Amino acid sequence: MRISELAAATGTPVATLKFYLREGLLPKGEATAATQATYGQAHVDRVRLIAALSSVRELPLAKVREILAVVDQPPSDVVHATGQAVASLPPYPEPQDPTLARARNVIEELGLGFEPDYPATAQLQAALDALDSAGLPWTPEIARRYLDPLIEIGRDELAPMQQMGATSEAVTYAVLGTALYEPLILALRRLVHHHLLTQRRQPR
Amino acid sequence: MRISELAAATGTPVATLKFYLREGLLPKGEATAATQATYGQAHVDRVRLIAALSSVRELPLAKVREILAVVDQPPSDVVHATGQAVASLPPYPEPQDPTLARARNVIEELGLGFEPDYPATAQLQAALDALDSAGLPWTPEIARRYLDPLIEIGRDELAPMQQMGATSEAVTYAVLGTALYEPLILALRRLVHHHLLTQRRQPR
Repeated sequence: MRISELAAATGTPVATLKFYLREGLLPKGEATAATQATYGQAHVDRVRLIAALSSVRELPLAKVREILAVVDQPPSDVVHATGQAVASLPPYPEPQDPTLARARNVIEELGLGFEPDYPATAQLQAALDALDSAGLPWTPEIARRYLDPLIEIGRDELAPMQQMGATSEAVTYAVLGTALYEPLILALRRLVHHHLLTQRRQPR
Repeated sequence: MRISELAAATGTPVATLKFYLREGLLPKGEATAATQATYGQAHVDRVRLIAALSSVRELPLAKVREILAVVDQPPSDVVHATGQAVASLPPYPEPQDPTLARARNVIEELGLGFEPDYPATAQLQAALDALDSAGLPWTPEIARRYLDPLIEIGRDELAPMQQMGATSEAVTYAVLGTALYEPLILALRRLVHHHLLTQRRQPR
């Protein structure tokens, strides 16, 4: 298909596609003439992936590039590959305590593995620091209230990855699944709170 | 206490406290001389609240002001008051479809109340749109996988509000609890995914 058809197929303006091409995010099409190229299904999929990543708040273009690099040439180990790609997603916290001692305590108490270089560890430390500063509680009971459901949910979320043959497919699923279900979970949580408070006001 | 002591008590620099005073976020102390004032426990609490809100990513000062206004003069109905304050928290999505038809469907399917003006509704719609664009699934089964645990967790999260006498206390708890546990839940979710994938690689 021509670039105008690629635009129609993906709902992405031609100018945006040209930007992706210039930035090297989207591979060039097959040249059919000096100023024309033809695009295939792989391009459609790639544009959809770039568009999905572009919709993630606070994800800079440099990080999109990092993620696409992992998708294109994933490390052979799928855990390593998905970890590396997900690590490029925001936020990028820089906690005050670089030893991440507080996060380490919590992670080990919960029976998870402490990996200081995995960004979610620093993310946890920053979140715990913010709770402490605000005087909000964090006890082993509160920790378990979140952990057990997240493990339950996590198993379901990861299940489709078992069926994926190619590492790049698994990486794409992990990145998009991590980034795009997050806003959904947070929106639902707020709606549930509001619902529960409203119910409590009007007991049936 | 003097402003230097307020700074020490709250871990907030004097220059920052003066900024809060100038902006009207922090009420003036009791004047003891032409250029001196004395501060009490209420000021300590207020500074802690402002500092906690300042740690929330993407929360502009104008919205901090809105939240403090609700804390200071909450509507008498606690559901209305907390709803109004939480509504000032980011994100501030503007979904393409202003009727929020997709969010309405999902909310009604889940047995929650559809309130188009409650910002979490627009947030849900934007999140659903992003899933659709990326080709990620959203089925009633997936919805329930998130909803049931969130209701379970939500009951626990809201329980302390039952004991709170003052509406302003409940509003403060609701705002900080919404904003500060969110990054924590997301960090834990990523850690759990990583843990589950690692476990799957090395069956014990």
